[in-house]
Parts: sequence; structure tokens; C-alpha cells
Amino acid sequence: MAPLSDRVLMGPGPCNPYPEAVEALGLPMLGHLDPEFIAVLDETCERLRTVFGTRNALTLPISGTGSAGMEAVFVNVVEPGDVVVVGVNGVFGERMCDVAARCGADVVRVDTEWGQPVEPQRLLDAHPAPKIIAVVHAETSTGARSDIAPLGEGKADALLLVDCVTSLGGIEVDIDGWGVDLAYSGTQKCLGVAPGLAPITVSDRARERFVAKSRSWYLDLRMIGDYAGAAKGARKYHHTAPISMIRSLHAGLGAVLDEGLAPAIGRHTDCGRTLQDGLESMGLELIPPASHRLPQLTTVRIPDGVDDAGVRKQLLERHGIEIGGGLGPFAGNAWRIGCMGHTARPRNVTLILAALAEALGR
Amino acid sequence: MAPLSDRVLMGPGPCNPYPEAVEALGLPMLGHLDPEFIAVLDETCERLRTVFGTRNALTLPISGTGSAGMEAVFVNVVEPGDVVVVGVNGVFGERMCDVAARCGADVVRVDTEWGQPVEPQRLLDAHPAPKIIAVVHAETSTGARSDIAPLGEGKADALLLVDCVTSLGGIEVDIDGWGVDLAYSGTQKCLGVAPGLAPITVSDRARERFVAKSRSWYLDLRMIGDYAGAAKGARKYHHTAPISMIRSLHAGLGAVLDEGLAPAIGRHTDCGRTLQDGLESMGLELIPPASHRLPQLTTVRIPDGVDDAGVRKQLLERHGIEIGGGLGPFAGNAWRIGCMGHTARPRNVTLILAALAEALGR
Repeated sequence: MAPLSDRVLMGPGPCNPYPEAVEALGLPMLGHLDPEFIAVLDETCERLRTVFGTRNALTLPISGTGSAGMEAVFVNVVEPGDVVVVGVNGVFGERMCDVAARCGADVVRVDTEWGQPVEPQRLLDAHPAPKIIAVVHAETSTGARSDIAPLGEGKADALLLVDCVTSLGGIEVDIDGWGVDLAYSGTQKCLGVAPGLAPITVSDRARERFVAKSRSWYLDLRMIGDYAGAAKGARKYHHTAPISMIRSLHAGLGAVLDEGLAPAIGRHTDCGRTLQDGLESMGLELIPPASHRLPQLTTVRIPDGVDDAGVRKQLLERHGIEIGGGLGPFAGNAWRIGCMGHTARPRNVTLILAALAEALGR
Repeated sequence: MAPLSDRVLMGPGPCNPYPEAVEALGLPMLGHLDPEFIAVLDETCERLRTVFGTRNALTLPISGTGSAGMEAVFVNVVEPGDVVVVGVNGVFGERMCDVAARCGADVVRVDTEWGQPVEPQRLLDAHPAPKIIAVVHAETSTGARSDIAPLGEGKADALLLVDCVTSLGGIEVDIDGWGVDLAYSGTQKCLGVAPGLAPITVSDRARERFVAKSRSWYLDLRMIGDYAGAAKGARKYHHTAPISMIRSLHAGLGAVLDEGLAPAIGRHTDCGRTLQDGLESMGLELIPPASHRLPQLTTVRIPDGVDDAGVRKQLLERHGIEIGGGLGPFAGNAWRIGCMGHTARPRNVTLILAALAEALGR
């Protein structure tokens, strides 16, 4: 049997992109200062404001993947010695600690068992006057959601920094309503676009506390904002924008907003619930507690005696379906099944449940 | 007249991408650990070795634009206090100084008039024992080429770091033959691919002198090399690779190598010569000296009394042709006309000469 290259991508990302986003990749190239491209960029930023739930002027796609977004938000506000409280309940909280430490931060970790949400009060109590409180909204390594709103209420003088890589477009994100100061995401999850860009948003309050000179030139948000139009005055060239990817993001966001943000989130919710119900009906155990379980990314324990790699290989080779293995303490004993972006369709939920039942002989 | 969106891109980049590179953007998405994608990534790195003229194991596309490549090479070798000699004859030499200074370098500038090449001996004489000697091979802001080979011969213990953004694929680049230790490029110039990736290559000699821990997590070349296969042993996930862009680079490099690297460079040479002869025949003055004039990027003085922005606007609106304005001291008094990648065709040279003659009434 010839292998299938048209994958059904049900891992932790990338998802299958929206057809509109794929089509836009092939549009004729434009220069990065072309008026036609600048109009697309401006509209992309405005669409990002809608999905983030913000009026922040500094809202734009960083020219790198989600992790570049993470680095961008830290590197513009952290100076050596600044106290940064980080919630750690998976790979991406760990990554935040690493990134912040490389900026010279005094990192205060709040460790939580993998698979569990980070308790907001523990973050608020971790230090009397941190510069930043940082947490991952939707932990891609575990499928757990942490609550953000209580952090905004209790943050006092701290800046609230939130990883929205896997949450944006898949569950409610309300940057302004929750009082989030710095947030970043990725394009390849619930926004349904290829990987390569990191949407970010930064409050005016956080911009006032930017370091005098970021230690990164490439991720210097003052200079990038001057190009992307977040500053008043003329646009200044910074680096050549990734034109095709930005046009694709523009189109992907267009598809989401044409459907409606709430219906798109509802589709993720419904697909996730059906998938999770189906997995439990097969006798499989879901890892995060029901109250904090992401619909778009499901972590399920691998039953005893089942060959992790063998099942994933069978799904990939027989059906062209990708699911994700576990990371860290979950390596070898959990799968991560994503239902994000264009992949979040009942058809794919029905398919993966049937294919898993077939592979497990249930 | 309805405006044309299918531009003829004859500015300093992006160029029009090769049709093969555009087509690959639309291929079905793959996961970043999918065996099919890993094979594409490996072959992309091997193709990059061919165009760079190197056997360096650490040769790969950075997930960002050319400037991310610049930052990646500096941030992995520079520690605070390290002496970095930088040749400055345009915007990108200036940028190197800024990036190196943010890494804490003691920057020793070797300033040269814009439009002129940097003299190798002046770089070699600038400091008795620098850690790095850095120079731009092809200055995108001026169209001047600087000689690299003498730097490799005279570098002694220094690491030789070269910006190949506009040179790679358009003129000879011989990383191993010239003794270059660190180099980076962009995809949107003579490689004929959309902007968004930065091919880099690093010698084993430079890898041995990497800092203990890069101040950038995103651009940490040890970790990126572990994912891209430059290290021995298992691949480790670092960040989600920009799949579509890498497939496009793979296909663009395939187009270049199918044509043959030498014939592709020859095409850039021929187009540049024809363009430059044509401009001189129209009585226009070229800025860099003939001996160090890039064929792929021509800088021409705007004749007295000619309206810079008006001419560029006419070319764009009437013909959909983009040419570049001047930067820095050249703003308002020079144009930059690129002939790179798929744009480097006699048809486009004939077109731009005729369109300019029309606009200038010559």
C-alpha cells in the first residue's frame, strides 16, 4: 500500500490548515513595503485584536514560531535581577523558566503536578512584588487549562504574561477582560494556519515598562512596532516580513471570523467533548481533571501492555493519521490527540475513535 | 486602470519566487517529527551545504528571516567583553554592530564609505586578537561586494563571520574554500523563495567556541542542531519547525540545483551586466565601482530633478514593477534595482530598462 502524504493531523500541532490559509500561501509575492501588503498586515493585526479580545495597539505577528513569541515578550520586559514568577505544570512552563533565566531573571517557580492546572492563588502568593507573573493558559504537553482571570484581579503591580499558543481560537481568550499584559500564540494550533508566526499582544502598561534596549535585536518590540504600525508616525523598515505566511495568517483569521469566533470555539468544544466521551467509552483514562480539560488537546493514558510507538506507527502508515506521543513524565505512557483549527471536525473525531478502536482491538 | 497585484519584484528583495517554491507552499501539511518531513529537512540541509559550498554539519534553515540568522550566529559565539571587528559600509554592517553590542561585545568598527567595498586588510589590522571578524559579503543597501577570501587567509585565531543574505545563489560563495566560520543568508533574494527563513552554516571550529549557554533560547544553535540532525544521536524537539516554508525552500533549492548552481549564478551575472550596461547607456550613474559591483543588486544615482517617489509610484501603479528606494545617505538620491532568483531573467531586464526610459523620458 503506497503511503498517504495527506495526513490527518491530530497531534499537538500543526493541525491541518484551513483551505483559505493554504490558498493564500500561493498568492503573488509582494514587497514588505508595498501598500497592498501593508494593508494586509494592518488588517491581520486588527483580526488578531479580535481573536485575542484586546484593543492593544501593539498586537502583531512575530516573524518566528510560537517560541519566538515567548522569547519576544520576555526579552522586552525582563532586566537582570527582575523577579519572574512562573507556573510550571508542563514543558512550556519549563521553557518559560529557561527563557526568563537567560534574560537574567530571578525565576520563582511554582511547580504543579503535570496534568493539573496551576492554582492562581499559589502564583499570587509566590512573591510579594514580582515584576512578572507568567503562566501557560493551555499546556500543550498535558492538555490542562489554567485559570487566568483571577491572576489579572490579583496581580497588583506585576505584569501578567500568558502563553496562549494552544488556547487562542480554541477556547475563550479575553486579554483585556482578564487583565493580561503580554501574551503570545502560534499559528499552527487553533488558528488553523501553517507554523511559522507568533501572534503577540502587549498592553500599554507593559510597553511603559519595556527595558531601555532589548537584548534581542530581532525581537525588539519597539522597532517591530514601528514597522507594523503600532507606533504613531512613519513606518520604519526593521526586517523583511515573511510575506506569504502573513497573507496566510490573514486568510486563516478571515476564515475563523467568517465562521464567527464563538462558533469556531464552539466547534472545538463540541469536537473535544465527543472525542473525550468516546475515549472514555473505550475504557481509556483522560489525564487532566474534567474541570480543566482542554477540548482541543486531549491527553489520554496508554493502557498497560499497549505498544505506544507501534500504535502511532500503525495510525500513520495505515491511515495517514498523526497523533502525538507524551513528553517528559508522560513519554511512553500518554498520547496527545489534537482537534484544532480545520482538523476540529466531527468527521475527524469519528475517524480517530474508529481507528484507535481498530488499533487497540476494542 | 485596475491595479496589478502580480508584481514584478525588482527591489532589494523579496524577488519573485520560483514557481516550484510557490507550489511547494501548498503541499499537504506534515508534522515536525513526521518521517516524511524529517527527510525533506535533511535534504534541505544537504542542498544548503551545496549552495554554501561547505561540508559543515551545522547547516540548516533558522525559523526566522535573514536578520534572525544574523542574530543566531552572533548570539551563540559572543560573550560580554569579546572583541568583534565589524566592517561597516551600509545598513547591514551597522546592524551587525547593533546585534553584537546587544550581546555585550566590544565592537571595533571599520567604517568605509557607503557604496565602496570593505578593504580586507583594514579589517585584519583593526585589532591584534579579535574573537570575531564580521563583514557583509553583498551589501543590500549599496550594491557593493566585499572580498572574503583574504579574510580567511589572514584571520589567525579569529572566527570569520559573513553576511551572505544577498550573495548566496547570486554570486560565488565558497564557505569552506574561503575559511568562513559562520554565515547566514535569507530565502527571498537569489535563492528565489519567499521571505521567512535564514539558512545558516557554522564550522566545527566555531561550534567548539560556542558560549556555554546562548542568551537566546529560540536561536540556541546547540538545541536547534539537536533537532535538525547536526548532532549525533536522537533528534530532540526544540520548536515546531515552519513546515510549509521549509518545503518551499527545499523546492526552491531543487530548482536552483536542477538548473545547476553555476548556470544560475551565470544567469544573475548576465542579467546584471545587461541591466547595468543599459542603465549607463541611458546616462545613469552606477554607484559601486565596477570591480565590486553586484550583478543581482544595482544601485543607481537618481538624476537631478527627477522625482524619486513619483517614478517609483509610476512603475508600481502603471506596470506593477517594484524597485527599491535608497537607505541612509542614499535615501532620495539612489534607486536599488534587484534582479534576483526567478526575477533574474532577460525579460525583466528588458522590461525595467524600457519602463525606466519611459518614466524618465529618455
